[in-house]
Amino acid sequence: MADPEAQNPVAEEPAGPSKSELKKRQKALEKEKQVAEKAAKQQELAAQRAAADVDYATEFYGPLPLHQSQTRPRLPRIEISSLSARDGETVLFRARVQTSRAQGSKMVFLNLRQRADSVQALVVVSPETISKQMVKWTAALADESIVLVQGLVKKTPEPIKSASVQDVEVHVSQVHLISGIDGRLPFSLDDASRPDTDEVVTDADGKAQQFSRVLLETRLNNRVVDLRTQTNQAVFKMQSGIGDLFRQFLSSQGFIEIHSPKLQGAATESGASVFKVSYFKGNAFLAQSPQLAKQMAIAADFERVYEIGPVFRAEDSNTHRHLTEFLGLDLEMTIEEHYHEVMELLDGLLLSIFRGLREKYHNEIGLIGKQFPADEFKWREGPEGTLKLTFRNAIDMLVEDGVPRETLDDINTENEKRLGRLVKAKYDTDYYIIDKFPMELRPFYTMPDPEDPTLSNSYDFFMRGEEILSGAQRIHDPALLAEKMRAKGVDPESMKPYVDAFRMGCAPHGGGGIGLERVLMLFLKLNNIRRASMFPRDPKRLDP
Amino acid sequence: MADPEAQNPVAEEPAGPSKSELKKRQKALEKEKQVAEKAAKQQELAAQRAAADVDYATEFYGPLPLHQSQTRPRLPRIEISSLSARDGETVLFRARVQTSRAQGSKMVFLNLRQRADSVQALVVVSPETISKQMVKWTAALADESIVLVQGLVKKTPEPIKSASVQDVEVHVSQVHLISGIDGRLPFSLDDASRPDTDEVVTDADGKAQQFSRVLLETRLNNRVVDLRTQTNQAVFKMQSGIGDLFRQFLSSQGFIEIHSPKLQGAATESGASVFKVSYFKGNAFLAQSPQLAKQMAIAADFERVYEIGPVFRAEDSNTHRHLTEFLGLDLEMTIEEHYHEVMELLDGLLLSIFRGLREKYHNEIGLIGKQFPADEFKWREGPEGTLKLTFRNAIDMLVEDGVPRETLDDINTENEKRLGRLVKAKYDTDYYIIDKFPMELRPFYTMPDPEDPTLSNSYDFFMRGEEILSGAQRIHDPALLAEKMRAKGVDPESMKPYVDAFRMGCAPHGGGGIGLERVLMLFLKLNNIRRASMFPRDPKRLDP
Repeated sequence: MADPEAQNPVAEEPAGPSKSELKKRQKALEKEKQVAEKAAKQQELAAQRAAADVDYATEFYGPLPLHQSQTRPRLPRIEISSLSARDGETVLFRARVQTSRAQGSKMVFLNLRQRADSVQALVVVSPETISKQMVKWTAALADESIVLVQGLVKKTPEPIKSASVQDVEVHVSQVHLISGIDGRLPFSLDDASRPDTDEVVTDADGKAQQFSRVLLETRLNNRVVDLRTQTNQAVFKMQSGIGDLFRQFLSSQGFIEIHSPKLQGAATESGASVFKVSYFKGNAFLAQSPQLAKQMAIAADFERVYEIGPVFRAEDSNTHRHLTEFLGLDLEMTIEEHYHEVMELLDGLLLSIFRGLREKYHNEIGLIGKQFPADEFKWREGPEGTLKLTFRNAIDMLVEDGVPRETLDDINTENEKRLGRLVKAKYDTDYYIIDKFPMELRPFYTMPDPEDPTLSNSYDFFMRGEEILSGAQRIHDPALLAEKMRAKGVDPESMKPYVDAFRMGCAPHGGGGIGLERVLMLFLKLNNIRRASMFPRDPKRLDP
Repeated sequence: MADPEAQNPVAEEPAGPSKSELKKRQKALEKEKQVAEKAAKQQELAAQRAAADVDYATEFYGPLPLHQSQTRPRLPRIEISSLSARDGETVLFRARVQTSRAQGSKMVFLNLRQRADSVQALVVVSPETISKQMVKWTAALADESIVLVQGLVKKTPEPIKSASVQDVEVHVSQVHLISGIDGRLPFSLDDASRPDTDEVVTDADGKAQQFSRVLLETRLNNRVVDLRTQTNQAVFKMQSGIGDLFRQFLSSQGFIEIHSPKLQGAATESGASVFKVSYFKGNAFLAQSPQLAKQMAIAADFERVYEIGPVFRAEDSNTHRHLTEFLGLDLEMTIEEHYHEVMELLDGLLLSIFRGLREKYHNEIGLIGKQFPADEFKWREGPEGTLKLTFRNAIDMLVEDGVPRETLDDINTENEKRLGRLVKAKYDTDYYIIDKFPMELRPFYTMPDPEDPTLSNSYDFFMRGEEILSGAQRIHDPALLAEKMRAKGVDPESMKPYVDAFRMGCAPHGGGGIGLERVLMLFLKLNNIRRASMFPRDPKRLDP
């Protein structure tokens, strides 16, 4: 057998293409030629049939057979977003029919959509290519059908305001149906794209306008259609972007990604809000966070780890900001001298996400803003850096604003938002950190402050007055850990593998967990966390 | 309040540093100076105390107070991997004591470790800095203790073979204990690092050697210690790398990342192997794959999506390659003409992962190979490309090798491995694709072949004779989908939100799911999938 390395074109590159590579290219050229000839023949045939007055709606147009990968002609298909640069070209592409509007019996306007891009297309009766039946058939295409379209790209005299590509339109020569609609759409994409507001919208005459507002509940029940709006295409592109920015920053700081099990042997952290799973002949529990595993990864010397994964909370809270399953962006790292190393790294991480979103997703932010109007999310740049308050500072600000001090053992949701407004007014920022929470408000694994044992080395991060990150230095000493567990009513024996990890030596460490959907919701002011989750889960929703 | 933009150093950059920036830098310089002065003072104090014959073991050495972030002197700490370039420097770093070996009463050799790096350090009695007590204390340090070490880096006359940094060693001036060991180590790191073999190893005299092999079960029961070996540090660095390579390739191909819920309302796909969850007053089920959600994302026009997330299988299989929870690398994309577009993209993805691993993790592969010797993983590069067999071809190869055709309705695990050996012998590759599986072997959502309805547009990918990826074109037509569901005994009404997604129009599409741990196990020949999972879960293991 020949040495496989000898056939490796990468290894051969400096010496130019190999014989077999040349042969391959020749073959590809021949194939291309054949395809072009075939296409020309088809067009010729089409012209002949046109002359013979054949019914195009059933012959050359209309529904294609069910796509089972019957053929592979390798005809290039383009993206709508590229059309502006293709004036004068004949193009082929697959798209949704957002709307189809007949103009008399000889012309149809189509609004064709791909993801967040759309273009106007015209189907006009023409003696040689387009019959009256064809126009009729096209006019009757259901909204949200998927079609394969061939046509000529032409500059438009005036910008097409109803489409995202405004300077060209497509003069259609063929339309085929790839996938139709079976039943009635729950709502039109146009309706679903209108601002989601409770205000009654009236026209100039004072009459309520004739568009229906699509309720969130209706959207979520029909999420697959709802997700097709430009807004939602942009929202989930940005969700993906936050993950990328999170990983990029941490990777540059020496972190590796870990994957910890969601199935756990014991109901840990806080037994009350844990989902129970039937596990063969026994039970398991769903992890409320990767907390234990990521700390164990530190005890196992991985030094800096992050995880992106689902987090399960069996809390019966039907609020705008709680889900029973959400995406946790978690990290844990060793501390050299002080837990502020962790807090500062987390701050750098958040800033890098905010900057990345503003730079890379400028268009998406604009699009989403049309449906969800919001003041641009603000943070502090420059030498002063992110605003850092202590818990005590925060309480004082609230007391100064009139909240009775005796109600402020903890800061509830309402006061959190109030604090957000106070901070915004005083410091002009939507993003800040509160440090040094009282020990009694934090979980058992939180490291106490070295000077005041009622305080802890812990922090929360906020966006627009809502918590998006919670973190702390953790207890790495097994004796102190066991003591704090008992104080909170947790039996150290019930979490033996976790406590044992620290018995085998563990460096000082800290970390934090970010709620992905919260960051997305609050950056864009989507007002409900369900809008930031593709298929949200809450106590009442397990479908779709 | 001043315009915050005016204080933004990014906006100001072209005009050089602002006044506030300069002030900040001055401050930083001053702080640095103060820190340096403080450090010098401390050293001076140390010298004075030395002159006064103070007991260092309790005063300047020995255990530090519990690290609660008491101070932040900002003394730079270095990584062991950087030591070769620091000959002559006094350095400070945190490390594990892998071993501590006294040489008489005046000298101790330490092997100090960080992740996969290690260095030799010496503690030698010296009248001015190191007392006899100190040497004694250091010699008694338990293996796996964590210490803070200060010392002078010096070139060694001969390479230190027991350390990864071989050209320098550290002459210690201070050792502090950061975290000790509470109890007995389950095994030594040296033992855990030996080849995991069943062979009896004998020395030159024919006696069995005196090292103990650490059983996999023991390792997994004490995973936090086991994960500290160089081998495991490298394995999980590579696991993280596979995720990176997966995302990088797909991102370059226009994919976005999605997150689908693991909690589902119905026991879908195949009811037999689904975990049931108590969900408030009802039940939920853990997703066996993101299959349904990612197809719905296609029906929602996201065009190309991927997901990295846990996958749950309630199968009572205690084999070397099954876990009840594993990491799925899943993708789904629209098809323009033929499902081979998907198969070819998946092939490109796998090749890009293999190439990335070989290029970026050369050292790690070498390290792991010492404990798990393996032939280098081989794939075909060059114009011939990846080997693609049809299911029929594969059966023929097995029959030709002597397997009775009548036993080959499906290819079982044993025959899969046999086929792997046949392919390796004939084609010299550890990686290949089998296409066109019989319809009856695939799930209900698989698209049938357009010509032979007993076949399907589906494929599996293999590494070293084991399946690592399964995928197919999916049925996007709701009527055909319902028909195939009924044929497999699934009531379409039981999965209404899924079937409804296709009623609202869906493009032809296909995809696949890769098992992350399998790719890692087979690339490195780790022989058991538990070694490729940080905290593995199987029917008998939920801890740690």
